[in-house]
Amino acid sequence: MSKLPHIGTSIFTVMSQLANEHQAINLSQGFPNFPIDERLIEIVAKLSKENVHQYTPMSGLPSLLEKIALLTQQSYGRMVNPASEILITAGATEGIFATIQALVQSGEEVVILDPSYDCYEAPILLSNAKPIRVSLHSDFTPNWDAIRAATNKKTRLIIINNPHNPTGKMWSEHDFLQLENLVETHPNLLVLSDEVYEYIRFEQPHISVHHRRKLWDRSISISSFGKSFHITGWKIGYVIAPESIMKEIKKVHQFLVFSVSSMAQHALNAYIDQVDVTEIGRFYQQKRDRFRQLMQATKLELLPCEGTYFQVASYAGISDENDVDFTRRLVTEFGVATIPISTFYANGTDYHCIRFCFAKDDDTLQNATERLMKL
Amino acid sequence: MSKLPHIGTSIFTVMSQLANEHQAINLSQGFPNFPIDERLIEIVAKLSKENVHQYTPMSGLPSLLEKIALLTQQSYGRMVNPASEILITAGATEGIFATIQALVQSGEEVVILDPSYDCYEAPILLSNAKPIRVSLHSDFTPNWDAIRAATNKKTRLIIINNPHNPTGKMWSEHDFLQLENLVETHPNLLVLSDEVYEYIRFEQPHISVHHRRKLWDRSISISSFGKSFHITGWKIGYVIAPESIMKEIKKVHQFLVFSVSSMAQHALNAYIDQVDVTEIGRFYQQKRDRFRQLMQATKLELLPCEGTYFQVASYAGISDENDVDFTRRLVTEFGVATIPISTFYANGTDYHCIRFCFAKDDDTLQNATERLMKL
Ligand SMILES: CSCCC(=O)C(=O)O
Ligand SMILES: CSCCC(=O)C(=O)O
Repeated sequence: MSKLPHIGTSIFTVMSQLANEHQAINLSQGFPNFPIDERLIEIVAKLSKENVHQYTPMSGLPSLLEKIALLTQQSYGRMVNPASEILITAGATEGIFATIQALVQSGEEVVILDPSYDCYEAPILLSNAKPIRVSLHSDFTPNWDAIRAATNKKTRLIIINNPHNPTGKMWSEHDFLQLENLVETHPNLLVLSDEVYEYIRFEQPHISVHHRRKLWDRSISISSFGKSFHITGWKIGYVIAPESIMKEIKKVHQFLVFSVSSMAQHALNAYIDQVDVTEIGRFYQQKRDRFRQLMQATKLELLPCEGTYFQVASYAGISDENDVDFTRRLVTEFGVATIPISTFYANGTDYHCIRFCFAKDDDTLQNATERLMKL
Repeated sequence: MSKLPHIGTSIFTVMSQLANEHQAINLSQGFPNFPIDERLIEIVAKLSKENVHQYTPMSGLPSLLEKIALLTQQSYGRMVNPASEILITAGATEGIFATIQALVQSGEEVVILDPSYDCYEAPILLSNAKPIRVSLHSDFTPNWDAIRAATNKKTRLIIINNPHNPTGKMWSEHDFLQLENLVETHPNLLVLSDEVYEYIRFEQPHISVHHRRKLWDRSISISSFGKSFHITGWKIGYVIAPESIMKEIKKVHQFLVFSVSSMAQHALNAYIDQVDVTEIGRFYQQKRDRFRQLMQATKLELLPCEGTYFQVASYAGISDENDVDFTRRLVTEFGVATIPISTFYANGTDYHCIRFCFAKDDDTLQNATERLMKL
């Protein structure tokens, strides 16, 4: 008897495999296809000769923890305690898993906003807790009436994701005020905020839960060096939470992975000082603008993209296939792999929208759009 | 309310911190203090310039999976399927956590043999299952009467560890026959075999559960590149299990970390061909012999050491303190950090034994024993 009978292979694995089989251009799974920063390569090459190959402390390399505290100080408006409020994790995914497993008890509920990223559900089910799916409005903004209706005494966690994968939407001041009210009404409720695309935002600044005074005590944020520094394969991220919550997360992390790649931590420790994180948003804004401009020549209709390296497009004007069939046909007949948005809904809502990853070099984006012009 | 109220900071973290505070020689936490293989450093330096920085497939880099299948073929006497029976994990710890979470249901039981490594308990508790602790005999061999008495219809897993940390004992043919009987009697029972020290064995060969025809279908093994190649900080290991079991483990792994350090996997893929794994045992056998010889000059009494890089010693002839107090005094007064064996027993059994890690350069071992001569 499977503990996760309804969980199959992640859509990212399925689509990347399909892309490879059909030698399609892979705009499905989110990862950059361009070289990483030369400086980071140099750092790794040099560091590998040094004494960086044994366990780091369980919570992370102390100097990297301190640099993360400094890095986040500006956006949070406060300095977090590197020793007690930060944990370096084996990618954001491990941070999310450890957090959910540490905090959610058997029988409790967790509110998830659909369309939602696919790694939230398994750790909830493995905790014998219940995911409660609340759909965003059709413009992908939070439906606060529905969220309030779904929240009760048993709700331990609400998971938010800002900037939002897969839709590219960002939270407004109104949304934060609503969340603050919700948390005030439900004393047992904590907020797990997936902020892995925090630096990949365009016209508006990113607001972290830790920037909101009313949320600080009740929130856990998740970040990803993989996303920010174009190194998804390094699998290194971090969690920030107030000490009393972090204590519980560390208990799980300690027996889940114990510690995280020492070489990666030493390399990031040397690199992080050399990076201006505001560059990351500007870099991807250019990619977004270029991709959107190229896509004008296709029949696909682009939705707004405020953050992340994902662009959602509607094919409603072209076909009335469901989005799974449509993306499959895009790979096999047109040679472009994308992600069907319906797979991020537990109830299969299908707005005839697909997701493109534009973290690609200009040639790739150009070649893909040329293929899509044939649609 | 904590989900893990009785779980504190791991003894390895506690002792390594204490060692640092007192500038003691750290023979507590298990990690090598000598440089890693030059060839591996060269590989990393070269590879870092290549396209190795994005996600690998979820189960691991296909060519590394194939090389693991070849590596294990000789000792298992069969070829495992790299695509369906091997999973590369974020260290052995993640492999153990994912396996337990995937296989053990709420209300089930897991037999653990004390003294036992400290990472088994948390994933059992987080699955709302029950760890059943069975002590080894006082010579650290399995107590089969007690194991049989502890096993029932609810027992989903027995966790074995061979070579055994912390005691350095290895399993005999008799033990395997008993285990085969046990598994035959209990059709729901699976074996989780922690074999991270498989190559660090001395007078006798290591026998994997996968070498036993009667256990193959019912067993999951855990291995560690960190232990075998002196790179504990890389946090990379692997799980081997028959496909039907592996399918469930992969479901958890996929949403626990998704994938594992791409650079580490590429580097190991290039390195593994150059290594003669039988060298590893010979290398550590020299260390063991050297350490044991040096220790003759102290009043500590050495127990047998058949495998692992740990040596257990009795201080019963010197002091009747409990082993926690004794190890603390060893750090503060004598400048040598070790591990008290009682912390590996749920019931606190204290044979007045402590564990030394001898994965250290000769100078360190010599300096440590000189300090211990003052005992
Ligand atoms: C972990 S694979 C998925 C990568 C990603 O974040 C995405 O494509 O949404
Ligand atoms: C994960 S830290 C502990 C290292 C180790 O395996 C040991 O010392 O037993």
